[in-house]
Amino acid sequence: MNALRMDRLSWMDYAARIQRDQPAIFLPVGALEQHGPHLPLGTDGLLAAAVAADTARLVGGLLAPTLSYGYKSQPKCGGGQHFSGTTSVDAATLIGSVRDAVREFARHGATRLVVVNGHYENQWFLIEGIDLGLRDLGPQPALQVMRLEYWDFLTAATLADVFPDGFPGFALEHAAVIETSMMLHYHPSLVRTDLIPDEPPADFPPYDRYPTPKDWGPPSGVLSSAKGASAEKGRRMAHELAQRMAAAVARALR
Amino acid sequence: MNALRMDRLSWMDYAARIQRDQPAIFLPVGALEQHGPHLPLGTDGLLAAAVAADTARLVGGLLAPTLSYGYKSQPKCGGGQHFSGTTSVDAATLIGSVRDAVREFARHGATRLVVVNGHYENQWFLIEGIDLGLRDLGPQPALQVMRLEYWDFLTAATLADVFPDGFPGFALEHAAVIETSMMLHYHPSLVRTDLIPDEPPADFPPYDRYPTPKDWGPPSGVLSSAKGASAEKGRRMAHELAQRMAAAVARALR
Amino acid sequence: MNALRMDRLSWMDYAARIQRDQPAIFLPVGALEQHGPHLPLGTDGLLAAAVAADTARLVGGLLAPTLSYGYKSQPKCGGGQHFSGTTSVDAATLIGSVRDAVREFARHGATRLVVVNGHYENQWFLIEGIDLGLRDLGPQPALQVMRLEYWDFLTAATLADVFPDGFPGFALEHAAVIETSMMLHYHPSLVRTDLIPDEPPADFPPYDRYPTPKDWGPPSGVLSSAKGASAEKGRRMAHELAQRMAAAVARALR
Amino acid sequence: MNALRMDRLSWMDYAARIQRDQPAIFLPVGALEQHGPHLPLGTDGLLAAAVAADTARLVGGLLAPTLSYGYKSQPKCGGGQHFSGTTSVDAATLIGSVRDAVREFARHGATRLVVVNGHYENQWFLIEGIDLGLRDLGPQPALQVMRLEYWDFLTAATLADVFPDGFPGFALEHAAVIETSMMLHYHPSLVRTDLIPDEPPADFPPYDRYPTPKDWGPPSGVLSSAKGASAEKGRRMAHELAQRMAAAVARALR
Amino acid sequence: MNALRMDRLSWMDYAARIQRDQPAIFLPVGALEQHGPHLPLGTDGLLAAAVAADTARLVGGLLAPTLSYGYKSQPKCGGGQHFSGTTSVDAATLIGSVRDAVREFARHGATRLVVVNGHYENQWFLIEGIDLGLRDLGPQPALQVMRLEYWDFLTAATLADVFPDGFPGFALEHAAVIETSMMLHYHPSLVRTDLIPDEPPADFPPYDRYPTPKDWGPPSGVLSSAKGASAEKGRRMAHELAQRMAAAVARALR
Amino acid sequence: MNALRMDRLSWMDYAARIQRDQPAIFLPVGALEQHGPHLPLGTDGLLAAAVAADTARLVGGLLAPTLSYGYKSQPKCGGGQHFSGTTSVDAATLIGSVRDAVREFARHGATRLVVVNGHYENQWFLIEGIDLGLRDLGPQPALQVMRLEYWDFLTAATLADVFPDGFPGFALEHAAVIETSMMLHYHPSLVRTDLIPDEPPADFPPYDRYPTPKDWGPPSGVLSSAKGASAEKGRRMAHELAQRMAAAVARALR
Repeated sequence: MNALRMDRLSWMDYAARIQRDQPAIFLPVGALEQHGPHLPLGTDGLLAAAVAADTARLVGGLLAPTLSYGYKSQPKCGGGQHFSGTTSVDAATLIGSVRDAVREFARHGATRLVVVNGHYENQWFLIEGIDLGLRDLGPQPALQVMRLEYWDFLTAATLADVFPDGFPGFALEHAAVIETSMMLHYHPSLVRTDLIPDEPPADFPPYDRYPTPKDWGPPSGVLSSAKGASAEKGRRMAHELAQRMAAAVARALR
Repeated sequence: MNALRMDRLSWMDYAARIQRDQPAIFLPVGALEQHGPHLPLGTDGLLAAAVAADTARLVGGLLAPTLSYGYKSQPKCGGGQHFSGTTSVDAATLIGSVRDAVREFARHGATRLVVVNGHYENQWFLIEGIDLGLRDLGPQPALQVMRLEYWDFLTAATLADVFPDGFPGFALEHAAVIETSMMLHYHPSLVRTDLIPDEPPADFPPYDRYPTPKDWGPPSGVLSSAKGASAEKGRRMAHELAQRMAAAVARALR
Repeated sequence: MNALRMDRLSWMDYAARIQRDQPAIFLPVGALEQHGPHLPLGTDGLLAAAVAADTARLVGGLLAPTLSYGYKSQPKCGGGQHFSGTTSVDAATLIGSVRDAVREFARHGATRLVVVNGHYENQWFLIEGIDLGLRDLGPQPALQVMRLEYWDFLTAATLADVFPDGFPGFALEHAAVIETSMMLHYHPSLVRTDLIPDEPPADFPPYDRYPTPKDWGPPSGVLSSAKGASAEKGRRMAHELAQRMAAAVARALR
Repeated sequence: MNALRMDRLSWMDYAARIQRDQPAIFLPVGALEQHGPHLPLGTDGLLAAAVAADTARLVGGLLAPTLSYGYKSQPKCGGGQHFSGTTSVDAATLIGSVRDAVREFARHGATRLVVVNGHYENQWFLIEGIDLGLRDLGPQPALQVMRLEYWDFLTAATLADVFPDGFPGFALEHAAVIETSMMLHYHPSLVRTDLIPDEPPADFPPYDRYPTPKDWGPPSGVLSSAKGASAEKGRRMAHELAQRMAAAVARALR
Repeated sequence: MNALRMDRLSWMDYAARIQRDQPAIFLPVGALEQHGPHLPLGTDGLLAAAVAADTARLVGGLLAPTLSYGYKSQPKCGGGQHFSGTTSVDAATLIGSVRDAVREFARHGATRLVVVNGHYENQWFLIEGIDLGLRDLGPQPALQVMRLEYWDFLTAATLADVFPDGFPGFALEHAAVIETSMMLHYHPSLVRTDLIPDEPPADFPPYDRYPTPKDWGPPSGVLSSAKGASAEKGRRMAHELAQRMAAAVARALR
Repeated sequence: MNALRMDRLSWMDYAARIQRDQPAIFLPVGALEQHGPHLPLGTDGLLAAAVAADTARLVGGLLAPTLSYGYKSQPKCGGGQHFSGTTSVDAATLIGSVRDAVREFARHGATRLVVVNGHYENQWFLIEGIDLGLRDLGPQPALQVMRLEYWDFLTAATLADVFPDGFPGFALEHAAVIETSMMLHYHPSLVRTDLIPDEPPADFPPYDRYPTPKDWGPPSGVLSSAKGASAEKGRRMAHELAQRMAAAVARALR
């Protein structure tokens, strides 16, 4: 593990790796956000880092430290920003964090950066951070950046197995079957299966309203039930994600 | 129309409306973005404004001037930022435009603002702009804000009719059947039906890559065919959108 | 008109124009600002766009969508920021909007951009936006930018005719003879001539004071009387402006 | 002089003055900008500080340290930003400097701040800085701010005497009769009267062009001749300015 | 450990802790910075987190996720920003990260935040972030913030023992005896004692120079030798730091 | 003196100097900050400018106008930001001021810039301003920047003489022996020796606390006694500083 995690390498070992292998650098981005009574606040970052680590192992990449604080939680995908414990950053902060990372990894001579997002709300600020970082580098940068939400690499076949009653879509998959299964696989000691709520899926109108109504989702913060979660499902999804992400990295980044 | 459009009212008429009716203010947000060979660059703003105007009429609201320049176009939802004609703003600019608008409408004494988005890429920067604007107003602001992508108000029944072969999802609906039909309804003179490309739907990998690969979508910039578009479909969708958005405004904003 | 307005062109038509003609791009910048009881809030943007369109026609240029929200209104030139309906942006927002536009039009390969200002308070933020945009482009940019307040193209002879009792200077020309005449020419249905106030010209001290005193100008917001306005004067000024602006564009931008 | 200049007072003396007298604080803002061969780069700040000091003496005010670096020089009012020696700041820097000053003087308990501008290009960024500073203070701030360009306090009678051949307007008064006369009055050792150029007034078109054409003004950087300058004219103007500014402060700031 | 780390708690457990105990929240701030051939890039964050965790245990506090990316490395305290592997953020990013954290923990109802810095270059940007965050909270915030560099809690007695030949001061203590000893105590598997260089202490002039001269320090990046380091010294220092920091938290934060 | 101070040179004289001599430009940075009952608020800027002027004379350099407003005062090095009279800027403002200066002096063709800091709290924001300014210039800038706190050039021998009872370190040297002696040398009329407090040195804990406790230092704002100050000590230190700074400039900037 120490050979995988950039923060555990000496700069000389890191520099040697960059020169010798041009390893892909994986930058996980998470959030500190309510995930119901059964999952920890750090779920998004823990899963992004776990998936990124598995993928990095397959492609001989390196894992950079996680950006642990994500963009503000929205009611329809994360419960909303009014929960205690949810600890978020403004857009400018997240954009700056990614912009600086792009500029720095390019300075090291890295040519492949993979931004692995585990928190839906981060997506567009990662895009802007990458765009501004590449603008800083000037035309024809030597660094290529891949950006992804890890769950988009799940195949329809797997989703069909994970959701025998039909996949309800990613929209309500907050603290639900996918995340809970994967946490049971990667961090079982952090899951309180006894506390998984059994509430019907949240039902949202086709708009947002601000200030955020606090009664749009259930008080638990869970948008659809995680009752069908299992470590085995988590293992299967984790395996597929790493395999398919590794293939994408190998194919798409020169 | 002059009584609907805020920029065509005198300040005294506007002030009187605010005091008397508390009209909902509709702020359309668009983009200047390639929309294939058959639709104009301003499609997103034109449609957002048209839908907002129809809705405003139903609820006695007012239409603010459109924010015509949107966030940078992404390959998988708008073709990408490398097209000529696509003229976009950085995140900070769009966030600032919305933040300032929130603060100003609140100063007027308006209590209901509806941000009507017609460009998918704008979504999260509108969210940040609204959040920061409300933060500027302090706790318990008198202004409530609704934010929406207009297409989310289409019912499954309508989508089934518009797409007799099955609705492929909003992901590829750029310059395709929905937008083309609605432009045929609202702005027929701006649609070149003779130039609608008949290409198969674009197929994107489950990640982004930067710098943007220019060959991910077809050279025309159209992500799925608009061949099935018609003014009648546009009329039907426009009608439904205005009705349902009006109902939402009436119900959700006090 | 569709061939003139950039937002009504397809990207392919726009790209062809850029390649073939190197058309000057006209970017009108206005404001949403009180203009007395007789003129609409959008006067500055409507006039900037109208003058820009007439000029663009003469030089074969293109008209970009108007920036409709301008910098904060000042008492001595626009009545002040305390009026209802006046909807303004912070300096950073306006600067960003112009900076982004400069960078984007340059990316398209445009070599001539004309920023047509219709709101006095915008001037210096447009200058900063252009300066930063050109800085982004690096040394020897291919894009040249002209920036102007349209009224500066009126000749002394015309002003003498429009103001038979002597031109009082542009300082008080807010919602007064020039703007009202030009609105009567371009948008007669938006002018309430019956409501033109007949107040003496406002008299301001040689300093600003903040917070803005609300009693510096008349409650109507009009800084000098528009009683002498006529559509014919508007027509004459509009004609002269377009002719002289076109000549300047032809002469000054290579 | 030591009792006048804030930077020469101990904090205890300053605090006592604030509590006892509520003195107006004068904040001069200048520039480091070419002023022809005969005037020094610091002319704008030196004159703003001198006029502010004279006024402060009359009203028992205090003089804060000058903001010595101003906004970028423009061809039509300051020769342009391409001259060596002209050392300018971006809009954001000048805005921030003034915003911070407003917030700080308010924290001290000061109720009267007078921003004395000596560099035309600064004007609108001072306005934005004051506006944002007052916004930071919240509604009903205890601090009132006056903002002025000092030359606007010259009477028509004085201008008629200073310019016996007719006052050409402030537009070309850069390094010309007014500034040179006032420097001869306040800082005679810094004026090289022998080097005053005798060129005809510069003639500018009614627009700006960027990148700045370097040949719009004369190579000397002087926009109209300072040949008519004299220390006596400077003395007279300085006297009038201080008297009239003092009267304005007494009348306008409670 | 799970009860200590905020990211491993559910939001409900976190909220209950905040309400019941008002636990101090510890926010470690580190860097990704060269630390010679024998220590890993993440040393600063690992040590800040370890010390913070030990202290949190003593006072019943909670440990927030580490800010792993720090401010740009300076030659005289960290070797300089030109090393491969050193991955830093701009001032604005670090300031924003802390400002947002202050605002968020205050929203949760936390009243005690302890920012534990492990990277010397971060100090002033943490100060600004805290200041701006508290400004956002308005007057009389319920949240109190302690900010510290952990090494400042070492007593002279301990330093005398750790450095039997005399403590050379913190200035050169980068990747040297203190950090190496503490890493041997907390993370022995990450220390390559066999690679500790034995170079004489770096000698710097009393100024900085930019662009950074790459030859000011030794190529290894170590500013003074870590030869005297031991796990036992690390244990002793770690013990003292936690005890004394805990006492300070108990005494200084109400 | 006029030949030394950039603001007193004409642009032509400045340009000639730059071309002929490549003079080092000295940019003093100070603060407006309480300095006890006996020293003026502007002490830091006055001393930075005085030392810079003496050094510039020795190396044939030029003195740019002082940045008179510094970063927010901290309790442990400047008494704290709650004192009346202390007038500070946010980090972004100070960073911007320096960034702009770097860019401008480079545009003039200057190759040597020396930033002379007289206010401890400024240090890291100067570093960031220089770093961003150099980033703006692109790789291999022609401008080199030296940055220093002037007191770091005092030798141990001199400190031993100035502090016969032992040098207590720079930490408490705010408004104490060094600054008071140097003010007695450079600006004796601004020192009230009769008001020098005779309090024991302040004793601070090894952490910061925010909001700032107002009772950490003595009410006078003096952190250690200035009783031992004398003009002769000031003269000696001033002489040494100029000599040693001049030598450093000659040696370190090509």
